[in-house]
Amino acid sequence: MAENGAAPQDKVLTLDSMNPHVRKVEYAVRGPIVARATQLQKELKQGARKPFTEVIAANIGDAQAMGQKPITFLRQVSALCLYPDLLNSPEFPEDAKQKARRLLAACGGQSVGAYSASPGIELIRQDVAAFIQRRDEGIPSNPENIYLSTGASNAIVTILKLLVAGEGRSRTGVMIPIPQYPLYSATLADLNAVQINYYLDEENCWALNTEELRRALVQAREHCQPRVLCVINPGNPTGQVQSRKCIEEVIHFAWEEHLFLMADEVYQDNVYAEGSKFHSFKKVLFEMGPKYSRSVELASFHSISKGFMGECGFRGGYMEVINMDPAVQQQLTKLVSVRLCPPVTGQILLDAMVNQPQPGDPSYQQFSQEKAAVLGALARKAQLTEEIFNRAPGIHCNSVQGAMYAFPRIELPPRAVQDAEAQGQAPDMFFCLKLLEETGICVVPGSGFGQKEGTFHFRMTILPPQEKLEILLQKLSQFHAKFTQEYSQRQL
Amino acid sequence: MAENGAAPQDKVLTLDSMNPHVRKVEYAVRGPIVARATQLQKELKQGARKPFTEVIAANIGDAQAMGQKPITFLRQVSALCLYPDLLNSPEFPEDAKQKARRLLAACGGQSVGAYSASPGIELIRQDVAAFIQRRDEGIPSNPENIYLSTGASNAIVTILKLLVAGEGRSRTGVMIPIPQYPLYSATLADLNAVQINYYLDEENCWALNTEELRRALVQAREHCQPRVLCVINPGNPTGQVQSRKCIEEVIHFAWEEHLFLMADEVYQDNVYAEGSKFHSFKKVLFEMGPKYSRSVELASFHSISKGFMGECGFRGGYMEVINMDPAVQQQLTKLVSVRLCPPVTGQILLDAMVNQPQPGDPSYQQFSQEKAAVLGALARKAQLTEEIFNRAPGIHCNSVQGAMYAFPRIELPPRAVQDAEAQGQAPDMFFCLKLLEETGICVVPGSGFGQKEGTFHFRMTILPPQEKLEILLQKLSQFHAKFTQEYSQRQL
Repeated sequence: MAENGAAPQDKVLTLDSMNPHVRKVEYAVRGPIVARATQLQKELKQGARKPFTEVIAANIGDAQAMGQKPITFLRQVSALCLYPDLLNSPEFPEDAKQKARRLLAACGGQSVGAYSASPGIELIRQDVAAFIQRRDEGIPSNPENIYLSTGASNAIVTILKLLVAGEGRSRTGVMIPIPQYPLYSATLADLNAVQINYYLDEENCWALNTEELRRALVQAREHCQPRVLCVINPGNPTGQVQSRKCIEEVIHFAWEEHLFLMADEVYQDNVYAEGSKFHSFKKVLFEMGPKYSRSVELASFHSISKGFMGECGFRGGYMEVINMDPAVQQQLTKLVSVRLCPPVTGQILLDAMVNQPQPGDPSYQQFSQEKAAVLGALARKAQLTEEIFNRAPGIHCNSVQGAMYAFPRIELPPRAVQDAEAQGQAPDMFFCLKLLEETGICVVPGSGFGQKEGTFHFRMTILPPQEKLEILLQKLSQFHAKFTQEYSQRQL
Repeated sequence: MAENGAAPQDKVLTLDSMNPHVRKVEYAVRGPIVARATQLQKELKQGARKPFTEVIAANIGDAQAMGQKPITFLRQVSALCLYPDLLNSPEFPEDAKQKARRLLAACGGQSVGAYSASPGIELIRQDVAAFIQRRDEGIPSNPENIYLSTGASNAIVTILKLLVAGEGRSRTGVMIPIPQYPLYSATLADLNAVQINYYLDEENCWALNTEELRRALVQAREHCQPRVLCVINPGNPTGQVQSRKCIEEVIHFAWEEHLFLMADEVYQDNVYAEGSKFHSFKKVLFEMGPKYSRSVELASFHSISKGFMGECGFRGGYMEVINMDPAVQQQLTKLVSVRLCPPVTGQILLDAMVNQPQPGDPSYQQFSQEKAAVLGALARKAQLTEEIFNRAPGIHCNSVQGAMYAFPRIELPPRAVQDAEAQGQAPDMFFCLKLLEETGICVVPGSGFGQKEGTFHFRMTILPPQEKLEILLQKLSQFHAKFTQEYSQRQL
């Protein structure tokens, strides 16, 4: 191409002219710190010298990237559906083949290459409903209320999009926990809805209490119209598992205050702590009797990316909607149809997850062992994380009751806070960036999730293999000690 | 559950309180006519008597649902990546294994179950760039400008979302062809942007002419700020293939009028007519010299759902952005990161598509034969469709130069138009519904795509197997004749 010619025009699309709501979006889990980590990894590959030999991405709940092996049965069913010639192979167990045949028969043209119905393959929606019904000990689930999705994120965005309306003081307000998973804040910014923060109680193992819900709600009513209450259980990034009593209180609150409930339950299989148990919002809602079960509108979300599966790359998930106005549900069905359908490969894998091998099936033993191994390892690592962090002065870590993250509070010397602010950085971002540069450990600063003013945290996954995790926890604790010492010696 | 208890409260989320923009969304390709077709299919299965024995879904470009076989090589690479034990199987060709190994090495933890980078796996972005560069005869493509996506739809929505801003008279206006693929109108409704219609010239085989672009633009400037020009080439639903000269004029127009260009090129492999050839907007842009190539902002879109692949269920695609402001491109990268990543299985299949077996490779012969067979059959069916329709009085069908659809104009008797309007239906919807009820043939009315006031059309895919397609075309023509006769006899 010639280098001559007229000077380029001004751009049509600039920071000033672009969608202002998109500009406000922030997503820390894949933010600047991760970009820097990727760059460091490249530099290492090219032979650059660093004080570490590898970058450890503890920023995102990506189990298989950290070495977790996929569950054989799930992949067998998927491979059989993708390449049906394998149905003739003696290498694949009969129950996987049976499941694959049944799923293929439910696909257009018997192929995973056809679009599915927009809410998902009907057979799989039925299987999901049966799964929920078993999980909730018989409380009925209607396949018509199940919408398969491209990961849980996609379903959460869809429901929020339905709920957002109004201008000025009648703009929709959405209550989200702080700390939160930043999909929520990002989506609310994008949709120009009002984010209403309610704070989880760190002193009380990140419990959700309704007094705090009420405080947040009353305050918010002065400037917007609160209509939605989002709950993440087990908590991300906090790792708390809500008690049945707490869930009842939340449901009562939503009923009383006329709020649409969104229950992000993607970590429902990830519960580790002694005495902790997952209770689905759906089940508790129905057990509270018809006053609640016939009126409270609820959408709950699940995913194949977490649990014992860790199949993030497949982008599979579902939501169940309860008590949704039938006319609105038609609108929901219309809205999802514009995107045609969720990935069929993700739907297939989801089906294998909700429809697991049973005792007596050829795959049962291997499946059960693999599942137990993954969940057992996570439970040990959850405990280890808490223990090692709490041995370190200046680091306080609540019990990782569930999910896949620790969200420890760290003390930072005033001088470090001052230096960070001078550089226009959140103090915990400043800490995490230095941690990355010196140790190769990539964690996400608490400021990306939200936290009480003046407190500092980071989120770290518990996913690295145990030996690696131990080293990582030690290194991180040591780095914090060194950092604290260094900045404490400097004059303010 | 008890039947007693308090009366249910009013819903939080109702038609009145929901997002008003979502209410305005329409998507005909999966609209009420398809819902009815699904219901009819169920009734048939349950043994209901109908004047037909099967429902033929000619409403959507879903090749494999219509019996098209997947390309073996694409599925082999995918299956190998999904279930790497197969790398030891002698049943898979060596070149597929090589590609699978290379792709797995580029996945986190060597697994398709890990998240990828949000813009897609870096190696695949490089492969896509190399593919584009070959396609465009050496015009360079930068992997940094490639974003993998969840089908093309997802990428189109993302770019539109970036471009939408302003209120009142400064609201973003987006020029789209009429008839259009309703993803565009649906997304613009959802984003509350202004849809600016420019009409394709049916008398001239659906050509795009710049006088009409100018008319539409000048008119739109009175009430909004036109900033985007969308072009679909080869056309959906119209099947026209734009000439090089036409593309040059469009690019000049965009340059002159300071418009961001969006080129929907998902049917680039589907060109059938003698003398028609696909020219990419990117290539023409660069051949027009630096005055254009250094200034016109362009996003172009491709997909694995169409072409010879027809792998709709995998939800794979990509876009290339050209001349995008680097600061905006950072915002784009941030925006896609909130959704984590496109389905990795779709990315893998996309790579196998852009990185096809070469002469000498073990898979070359079979791959080439399968590809040629699919494209050859489509070309024959395109011609057949045009021929049979044009033999029918009252049906006029332009040449199906490319893509996968015919969009014939139909004459409807005044009495039918009147009856339709009395029922609050668009006249072509009225026709298509009756067609469905009497013949089981599901096509989409032209009103779902837009058409000149007072004209009526429908969109039909050319995807059914040839023998079936012939019968379908005959039946449809006969039904139209009968319908015309019936309504012509009735008094107005």
